[in-house]
Amino acid sequence: MSDLHNFDRATSVLSRPDDPRVYDAELHEAWRIEKGVNGGLLLALAGRALAAELGADHGHPDPFSVSGYYLSASRPGPVTVRTETLRRGKTLSTGTASLLQGGVERLRVIATYGDLDEHDGADVRTSAVPPEMPPPEKCLGTEVTPPEFLKETPMLERIELRLDPATVGWLAGRPTGRGLIQGWFRLPDGREPDPLVLLLAADALPPVSYDFGILGWAPTVELTVHVRARPAPGWLRLRHSTRNFAHGYLEEDAEIWDSRGRLVAQSRQLARVRTHAPMPAGAEARSSQATAAIA
Amino acid sequence: MSDLHNFDRATSVLSRPDDPRVYDAELHEAWRIEKGVNGGLLLALAGRALAAELGADHGHPDPFSVSGYYLSASRPGPVTVRTETLRRGKTLSTGTASLLQGGVERLRVIATYGDLDEHDGADVRTSAVPPEMPPPEKCLGTEVTPPEFLKETPMLERIELRLDPATVGWLAGRPTGRGLIQGWFRLPDGREPDPLVLLLAADALPPVSYDFGILGWAPTVELTVHVRARPAPGWLRLRHSTRNFAHGYLEEDAEIWDSRGRLVAQSRQLARVRTHAPMPAGAEARSSQATAAIA
Repeated sequence: MSDLHNFDRATSVLSRPDDPRVYDAELHEAWRIEKGVNGGLLLALAGRALAAELGADHGHPDPFSVSGYYLSASRPGPVTVRTETLRRGKTLSTGTASLLQGGVERLRVIATYGDLDEHDGADVRTSAVPPEMPPPEKCLGTEVTPPEFLKETPMLERIELRLDPATVGWLAGRPTGRGLIQGWFRLPDGREPDPLVLLLAADALPPVSYDFGILGWAPTVELTVHVRARPAPGWLRLRHSTRNFAHGYLEEDAEIWDSRGRLVAQSRQLARVRTHAPMPAGAEARSSQATAAIA
Repeated sequence: MSDLHNFDRATSVLSRPDDPRVYDAELHEAWRIEKGVNGGLLLALAGRALAAELGADHGHPDPFSVSGYYLSASRPGPVTVRTETLRRGKTLSTGTASLLQGGVERLRVIATYGDLDEHDGADVRTSAVPPEMPPPEKCLGTEVTPPEFLKETPMLERIELRLDPATVGWLAGRPTGRGLIQGWFRLPDGREPDPLVLLLAADALPPVSYDFGILGWAPTVELTVHVRARPAPGWLRLRHSTRNFAHGYLEEDAEIWDSRGRLVAQSRQLARVRTHAPMPAGAEARSSQATAAIA
């Protein structure tokens, strides 16, 4: 599989000859965040299995709505995906996928698939407008991330994030308290975005709780992504925001815009936040570098 | 069960002695909208079964996040709810529920439950503010709904909706195109809101596609509700809006505010909209009455 892009290698699934609804896969070390594997990558992996289950025979290869409930922290290593078709319709089909490691369920997904090519490109009444941000070369990448933090988050080298300097005050100890982080996203090896990449992108930015000065991990309870159009090639723009952060839980909404200025996906997640979490490893070093970068 | 409130009668479930994870229930004619039963009521019914499954033994009686995938239109009559526990945790438990009629699956639900009493009331950093609207007595109720429309939507007599006149221009043939409908909600027989009532309230307002002048039905593909606090007694304020209406699909976000001004729930759904739908029965009569009411 050496000619595959990294994302496709990391989300490839192999159906079992004796039970084609069961798929074997491998969670790669390279997509790790601390001890676990990125939740967006897990959703994309489940999405790949469901595309095989609902797309091959039924003509519904594209995720329209995907909901993931995160049950336990996944680890790099082998993973099994069990799929089930709930309904086969003319326009839409619905199925479930279950990710298991050593018999322990990591993630349960339910999703409705269709065919994005059937969408009429003209019928758009969207009121949202794309977020304004400086071009990628004027935004901040991993050059402001300290090596000791990168070491525990190798996933940051599998994606290319360029954060809007106006929304990363928290890097320099000056969170805005607005609950907004935005930036550019692409895959660094030339892999262009498609609906499965959007499932990854929906969980790629840092938690917006960072913008409240809380730099701890924010594990996802539930994440639902609506894919609304097939993305054009090029950079994606991501906008993460919250209106409701209370009682240790955070609602986090993401919008994903493609290079043609279309709102190609929306997501919402409920995440837990340890509001008294300590600064993560390297945060101080990052702060001083970021202060210079932002200034 | 004559001493029960209507909502509790309509969502009561009875577990089978030989398999306590399976519940029998009845979908009441009174909660019908045209031929089907209201999607919020179905979610509350599934939520009741999951509260029994996850709450009784595990101390997690309250829905935190509930996702429903609507598979086929339900009908008034008997319904079976099959539940399954996926994970029992210290703080949160997750399970699924499947609603079946005559062996056909109507709705698949996955949900995470916890205990809302554990929430610390002080730790709120929510940036959203409650929607401003006139008091309930200055808003519009079913007095502007023509009898022939009410006859096909008996559910409108099981809830009390008072719509903000500023967001019902569509009633008089003057949709604003903003994609916003808001109003007051309560149960008319004195039943105070609780987390299960919030699941109903999340799908109680007319589709926001009405505010684009499209008065047809907007069947839900997926609906996720996050319950963030136990609501105080009294009226709820509902705010329904969309930022993304394209290609015959609509994202619809709801916020539910309680009488103490707290954002107690948020929901998002993906709905299909027939953008060339004809006016529903009675719409013209409604328009003329509403013109007078709004003027």
